[in-house]
Amino acid sequence: MNHIQGGVTAAKGFKAAATAAGIKYQNRTDMALLYCEVPCRAAGTFTTNLVKAAPVLWDQKLLHAAHAVQAVVVNSGIANACTGAEGLAFCRETADAAAEALSIAPEQVFVVSTGVIGMPLPMDRITAGVHAMAPLLSPSPESGHAAAEAIMTTDTHPKEVAVQLELGGHTVTIGGMCKGSGMIHPNMCTMLSFVTTDAAISRDMLQKALSADVQDTYNMISVDGDTSTNDTCLLLASGLAGNPEITAPGEDFTAFCEALHTVNEALAKMMAGDGEGATALFEVKIVGAANKEQARILSKAVITSNLTKAAIFGHDANWGRVLCAMGYSGASFDPNQVDLYFESAAGRLQLVQNGVALPYSEEEATRILSQPAVTAIADLKMGCETATAWGCDLTYDYVKINADYRS
Amino acid sequence: MNHIQGGVTAAKGFKAAATAAGIKYQNRTDMALLYCEVPCRAAGTFTTNLVKAAPVLWDQKLLHAAHAVQAVVVNSGIANACTGAEGLAFCRETADAAAEALSIAPEQVFVVSTGVIGMPLPMDRITAGVHAMAPLLSPSPESGHAAAEAIMTTDTHPKEVAVQLELGGHTVTIGGMCKGSGMIHPNMCTMLSFVTTDAAISRDMLQKALSADVQDTYNMISVDGDTSTNDTCLLLASGLAGNPEITAPGEDFTAFCEALHTVNEALAKMMAGDGEGATALFEVKIVGAANKEQARILSKAVITSNLTKAAIFGHDANWGRVLCAMGYSGASFDPNQVDLYFESAAGRLQLVQNGVALPYSEEEATRILSQPAVTAIADLKMGCETATAWGCDLTYDYVKINADYRS
Repeated sequence: MNHIQGGVTAAKGFKAAATAAGIKYQNRTDMALLYCEVPCRAAGTFTTNLVKAAPVLWDQKLLHAAHAVQAVVVNSGIANACTGAEGLAFCRETADAAAEALSIAPEQVFVVSTGVIGMPLPMDRITAGVHAMAPLLSPSPESGHAAAEAIMTTDTHPKEVAVQLELGGHTVTIGGMCKGSGMIHPNMCTMLSFVTTDAAISRDMLQKALSADVQDTYNMISVDGDTSTNDTCLLLASGLAGNPEITAPGEDFTAFCEALHTVNEALAKMMAGDGEGATALFEVKIVGAANKEQARILSKAVITSNLTKAAIFGHDANWGRVLCAMGYSGASFDPNQVDLYFESAAGRLQLVQNGVALPYSEEEATRILSQPAVTAIADLKMGCETATAWGCDLTYDYVKINADYRS
Repeated sequence: MNHIQGGVTAAKGFKAAATAAGIKYQNRTDMALLYCEVPCRAAGTFTTNLVKAAPVLWDQKLLHAAHAVQAVVVNSGIANACTGAEGLAFCRETADAAAEALSIAPEQVFVVSTGVIGMPLPMDRITAGVHAMAPLLSPSPESGHAAAEAIMTTDTHPKEVAVQLELGGHTVTIGGMCKGSGMIHPNMCTMLSFVTTDAAISRDMLQKALSADVQDTYNMISVDGDTSTNDTCLLLASGLAGNPEITAPGEDFTAFCEALHTVNEALAKMMAGDGEGATALFEVKIVGAANKEQARILSKAVITSNLTKAAIFGHDANWGRVLCAMGYSGASFDPNQVDLYFESAAGRLQLVQNGVALPYSEEEATRILSQPAVTAIADLKMGCETATAWGCDLTYDYVKINADYRS
């Protein structure tokens, strides 16, 4: 498996376009269109929030009916959440516009939104945006990049990745883009992530691969502990790579899953590191766990601890907050057995042995914690399972961005 | 029941003192001593964090053995958490010092700590502090106030309250003090709260009253979602009021519980409103719930939502974040049935009806949200249960305080 340039248009058959539709932002693109030359097999995972945005309901319905999806329309200005029955009508109208512009059926169009909750969609601008984008569709990396830019909200940079692997003598590509930033604490999936592949793979195996992998990738990141109403991860497979179709577990499926994991993990980490106001990517590894679930719960508790996140911002090796967060996580372990380390490009430092503080140099600790990516490692010494969660520091800018997000 | 001046020394028999022992802070008091002329019946609730500070273990042991407690020693510089076997020895030495100074047994001395995790206690200063305070013990309101000041960490003001009620023709007093500020998301009890009463009440009924009431008071506040290693709430009863002893449920017990609730709720709200960096007390009321547990879960989810808290700081009526937090809380309800209001001293405004936005004046909303105490009310229309949670806004100062707490 190799990393390659590109993103959501890297796999065969996929085209993208973007436009400044004026949904909410001025002087920037805020709509993206993703299209495949052929009908795709699709898999998706969505927010578990009881309050689901209308587009989530629309997409879940399409997935459930196993429609051969060919397009995705995204707007990044208004979430179309808490909009009642009107919200679903907005989705239908958006799909109708794309169906007309692309000569496909409305049931082949996923609709995805992110942005302000509770406001109605300006349908005239949405429809105009769809018709403006259709003629611009292109498989070029630039088009994929433009789409990745158009779906950003408070993200500071677009997020793309692509990899290639060999399956049955054929080159298979998987590429993706996503946006994150705030209200990020995915539960089933991230804010918005779009992954495309040209692999020939059955619908069941595609969904199986995605559902399993989100547990270790998108579901392991958190910016602020708030699970969005719009979390959506879509995986589209065009089948154009020509590989023997994957219809059951086996060597090819395992290779596909590994490559998919690489893409999903890369996108998830980009979101965590570009959390609203973040100055650092904060990674928490639990090792020596008795089981996977325990390791996941513990790593997520630390990654979501406001006090720990503020300490990371202050480059303060305040390991007591890490141990405290583990303690209230709900997972059982023996605090008197835990070893704790901080690690970064600047080195590795053990701070706790068997639950008790070791003497260490504050200077060295500050040096290690001043890197743009910092890892806390806790060894439970109970078994050999591990889990990693990704988040970011809690900063003045997080407060600033969210104290006046709507103004 | 009447509110009266005073705090932890208001009830008959209780004396307090404070001193600047130099545990961590300079130029301020950082140790408090609470003493009762007679042995007390004691009740307590403690952190449910798996990582428990040594003083929590010490106090739990005393409570379990039903010792007739007569003194409490508090230091607010170092938490004595994650200090291993040495931590318990610190507790024992502290109790020994108090026992010697007060001519009581070490098993009659509760030891309570808050502050930095992982550092050893400077026992020479602790012991000197205890001996310095013993001769200063006084039942005056000023002494109670001095103790309330000495237990503060990042609190901006001391927190005290006292009430009186009549039981069997006798005046019974309940008073208390507490400290909160950061790492506040009590689970069983708050950071540190000390409530004293002269009521004659059996040990069982005392614990019963406290255990029931913390569910609706301390356990309903959150500053940052971090459940401390040191949460401790102690309730001491001297029995000096002369009322017929409460030994079973009945009119007197109900009256006592009501008065205790008034004290606990007042202290809990003071902690929430004085959360680290807070500019506003944020109250969330769930009404029309099917059951109490549902109401509690929903109100706590909103109170701990970083996004909602940042919006309160920005005086932004971002009700979508409130509904979003309710949605991911884990409690079930019908989003399409929810009515949502914001309320403060400046008025009341409905923003959502049956899950959909109502038109409203942003100007009026900002006016309502600019008060020092703001309430969000969600009506589920499912039943008649209610719950209220208290928290505060998320501000630049919260980040500032916690990015360099140790420096």
